[in-house]
Amino acid sequence: ENRGRLLISCPDQPGIVAAVSNFLFHYKANIIESSQYSTNPEGGTFFIRIEFECPSLNTLQDELKEEFQPLADQFSMAWTLTCVSELKKLALFVSKEPHCLREILWEWQSGDLMAEIALVVSNHEEARDIVEDLGIPFYYIPASKENRADVEHQQIQLLKEFEVDVIILARYMQILTSTFVSEFPHQIINIHHSFLPAFVGARPYHRAYQRGVKLIGATSHYVTDDLDEGPIIEQDIMRVDHRDHVEDLKKIGRNIERSVLARAVKWHLEDRIIVHDNKTIVF
Amino acid sequence: ENRGRLLISCPDQPGIVAAVSNFLFHYKANIIESSQYSTNPEGGTFFIRIEFECPSLNTLQDELKEEFQPLADQFSMAWTLTCVSELKKLALFVSKEPHCLREILWEWQSGDLMAEIALVVSNHEEARDIVEDLGIPFYYIPASKENRADVEHQQIQLLKEFEVDVIILARYMQILTSTFVSEFPHQIINIHHSFLPAFVGARPYHRAYQRGVKLIGATSHYVTDDLDEGPIIEQDIMRVDHRDHVEDLKKIGRNIERSVLARAVKWHLEDRIIVHDNKTIVF
Amino acid sequence: ENRGRLLISCPDQPGIVAAVSNFLFHYKANIIESSQYSTNPEGGTFFIRIEFECPSLNTLQDELKEEFQPLADQFSMAWTLTCVSELKKLALFVSKEPHCLREILWEWQSGDLMAEIALVVSNHEEARDIVEDLGIPFYYIPASKENRADVEHQQIQLLKEFEVDVIILARYMQILTSTFVSEFPHQIINIHHSFLPAFVGARPYHRAYQRGVKLIGATSHYVTDDLDEGPIIEQDIMRVDHRDHVEDLKKIGRNIERSVLARAVKWHLEDRIIVHDNKTIVF
Amino acid sequence: ENRGRLLISCPDQPGIVAAVSNFLFHYKANIIESSQYSTNPEGGTFFIRIEFECPSLNTLQDELKEEFQPLADQFSMAWTLTCVSELKKLALFVSKEPHCLREILWEWQSGDLMAEIALVVSNHEEARDIVEDLGIPFYYIPASKENRADVEHQQIQLLKEFEVDVIILARYMQILTSTFVSEFPHQIINIHHSFLPAFVGARPYHRAYQRGVKLIGATSHYVTDDLDEGPIIEQDIMRVDHRDHVEDLKKIGRNIERSVLARAVKWHLEDRIIVHDNKTIVF
Repeated sequence: ENRGRLLISCPDQPGIVAAVSNFLFHYKANIIESSQYSTNPEGGTFFIRIEFECPSLNTLQDELKEEFQPLADQFSMAWTLTCVSELKKLALFVSKEPHCLREILWEWQSGDLMAEIALVVSNHEEARDIVEDLGIPFYYIPASKENRADVEHQQIQLLKEFEVDVIILARYMQILTSTFVSEFPHQIINIHHSFLPAFVGARPYHRAYQRGVKLIGATSHYVTDDLDEGPIIEQDIMRVDHRDHVEDLKKIGRNIERSVLARAVKWHLEDRIIVHDNKTIVF
Repeated sequence: ENRGRLLISCPDQPGIVAAVSNFLFHYKANIIESSQYSTNPEGGTFFIRIEFECPSLNTLQDELKEEFQPLADQFSMAWTLTCVSELKKLALFVSKEPHCLREILWEWQSGDLMAEIALVVSNHEEARDIVEDLGIPFYYIPASKENRADVEHQQIQLLKEFEVDVIILARYMQILTSTFVSEFPHQIINIHHSFLPAFVGARPYHRAYQRGVKLIGATSHYVTDDLDEGPIIEQDIMRVDHRDHVEDLKKIGRNIERSVLARAVKWHLEDRIIVHDNKTIVF
Repeated sequence: ENRGRLLISCPDQPGIVAAVSNFLFHYKANIIESSQYSTNPEGGTFFIRIEFECPSLNTLQDELKEEFQPLADQFSMAWTLTCVSELKKLALFVSKEPHCLREILWEWQSGDLMAEIALVVSNHEEARDIVEDLGIPFYYIPASKENRADVEHQQIQLLKEFEVDVIILARYMQILTSTFVSEFPHQIINIHHSFLPAFVGARPYHRAYQRGVKLIGATSHYVTDDLDEGPIIEQDIMRVDHRDHVEDLKKIGRNIERSVLARAVKWHLEDRIIVHDNKTIVF
Repeated sequence: ENRGRLLISCPDQPGIVAAVSNFLFHYKANIIESSQYSTNPEGGTFFIRIEFECPSLNTLQDELKEEFQPLADQFSMAWTLTCVSELKKLALFVSKEPHCLREILWEWQSGDLMAEIALVVSNHEEARDIVEDLGIPFYYIPASKENRADVEHQQIQLLKEFEVDVIILARYMQILTSTFVSEFPHQIINIHHSFLPAFVGARPYHRAYQRGVKLIGATSHYVTDDLDEGPIIEQDIMRVDHRDHVEDLKKIGRNIERSVLARAVKWHLEDRIIVHDNKTIVF
């Protein structure tokens, strides 16, 4: 199909929208959806996401990119142009708890997740069957503090081999080193089982129970070097009360985790997210 | 200040955004916020709301409008251009229950409602004090089925006299005739105390109780000739359970009503709403 | 295990709780959880649900029931006593859309649904694999308006044979006749894909789109002779906007449907629901 | 009227409910509402709240309390018995921002807050008019770090004089010393403008903006010696996005703050809250 998406960040100034829309109009592109945001109209940063239909986009793609560059230079733009028909390649990392993995696979089976699931990596064997039943390669790579460097080396090799665009940590309970993270900047999406910045780190449901909160939550964010401190993509919560013990919080939480992660992944795949200043703009 | 808003509806086709943004750029306007929607890129209707900063907008306003007309004609646009600094004039209609009136007045006092409250009209005396204490004219006009024509005639006179732009029915428990409604198309905002289209008409909380629903709601909509059938602007709900009797539903409902109405009024005042096909596009 | 549940409805009067708790204390039962409600302390109906631990409940069960009868007679009680260890037998009815079926099966696999899934009945073959993979009997019974009587006869036979306690209509898109419904009073749980009483009947998402609502919902209720008019167990909603077309509403709606149905089923299995006056009391 | 409330905490064991309900039945009391909870049926703590109608409760009150003591001793109960007709005396503390004060006053005017508002204390003059207009004494007591001891001494005197039962910090932006707090254990209710335990301390909206959260919240809790660490009574959140600057978060937050605080105060006044282990049980 002929649908494309243009994502741009640049210093704000008058004329950006005019220049970009003229460019697209020149290629007979019809703008389907457009969202923009400026941190500050005077001296701030400007962001825009444009989804458009352009006849023969597949053929014209390279020409478009080449021709756009001078315009991008003029406004000091950081930009990407993607074709909707070229599916992103996705890797899923999972440990023992399968609910987030299942949700993503389910969405994918239902045709609601426009991506290619290239492979699933796990430090446990539990998920092998449900993954291989769908014809997706499953890699069992036992991981622990001791063998972290080796394991990550192996994982990076795999991800390169499969030309993976985005890595989903679907409750992968291992910490990634900065070596790994720096290979995939803003390409690793994690689901943390708390309402960040509350309960950063381990055992958030235990600590939520201990503190006696009346709402529990989950947070999906891009992974950076600082544990649970990366740009937040999406969060949600559910109500709990004094009758809910840790096990109840976990059950309730699983439902929040899977829907929050699914939304974050969907937005990433639709090129709706721009990271700026350790925060996300979600168009 | 120099902030303006442009709202446009027209048949969708390539080049609209380019034409409009070129026009604005020509006047050195910087686009601050822009939202658009198309019912269907092929043969559908296109809608756009642009908020911009334009040097000397107040002085240039008439020129801008004149110069924009040829462009509008070319694309068969329905359009409005408003200056943010020219406050809309608002009339509040209220009966006995004061919670929605109070919420609007409160927002206004806090500086969160950018409008001029021109007058309050009521078929009861209860609200006189809180209104007049704020220096707002209060008109007591007893209303009933019998004197409806006279009453509405009197109200329309008042509204014309005060040059009112928008009428808020803040729990005004009288039905308006089509004579009245046709004087103010898409300018009358009502709050209905149910989750429409459930419980159209009278005594929605009683009927919600009777039906045993687990959520109750409120709906803000533009008033049309069909009772409770006008374009919906905003809705919200709260959870209730078997212990809540009609009186409890009313109490809980009051909180939903006032916040739903306040949001709808705010969006209207910010020119965020376009009515199309008995539905609203809220940008 | 020794956990039991006592559900009682009777005319309200002083002394009920004292009598019941004395009875339980006599059997050394410890009350774990107790909830009660009265429609009106004077002349209303009283409801109570008591969950208790009683040593050797399995052995004592029949004796307890026998001994409780005189007390029940004294207060004109309708009552049931269930042992938590005796799992309810559940039948799932499904048509083409699998999301609600999957959610229930998933909860069951995770150990979060304390029931025996006796069989799945469908008028389509689509779900056979995921059902039989779990070792659950799957019955394909094509159904249409024409053969309704025969089909229901066959279904009732199956349900009797499997001694089914509760029937879940997990998006079963066939109407049940009053013959069928009357066989299983307050034992059939349906999920309707709208926020009842809005959009009773067919194609609710189309009508929600048409009406331009800002929230869509789902409702789980017991099935009675009146279509979509049975006692509501649970409802929930999600926010939508003008950009969401019918297909989007369906996608969003599927998430509401499955979680609303899962909650309703869970509450039913835990004996938390009493039906009174076409409404539910959910303890 | 004859309505009473009994709140009990004691070590869990069989027979408590039987003993208490027998006692009430002896006084011809009809139990209207009853809620209970046990941290652990074996060796845990048991909590119960019973609301009842008892003929001539006002006259019988002292006798009831006297007669209940032996039963309380037998089960090692901590307990309180209150008459609904004896309104609690409430003090409101406020600084500059009036929205929480206004909400409480409004609820009180509407008859939805069953309490006597004894006085309002503020370190600013802003709220004087709206308070005194309602005939409520207003005390202006300037407060700062320097004069904290004197100010608190003066405040404690006032609160004793007015025989205040509960103190509401309706956005009172001064820290209370442990001297003050220890005078009113579990009697001081604060509203904190974040979703605790996120953003403990000063300027939570600034920090929420900085962190890029997608939901903001408010928390109502009992005040203890540890800042923002007291038992949480109620929390709620609203959705925000990248377009919301600090000022927007504050506006949105004000709506959460006032409704969360109003609910917490209502539950406290209805004797629905028991504090246990730095957490609340809300019946």
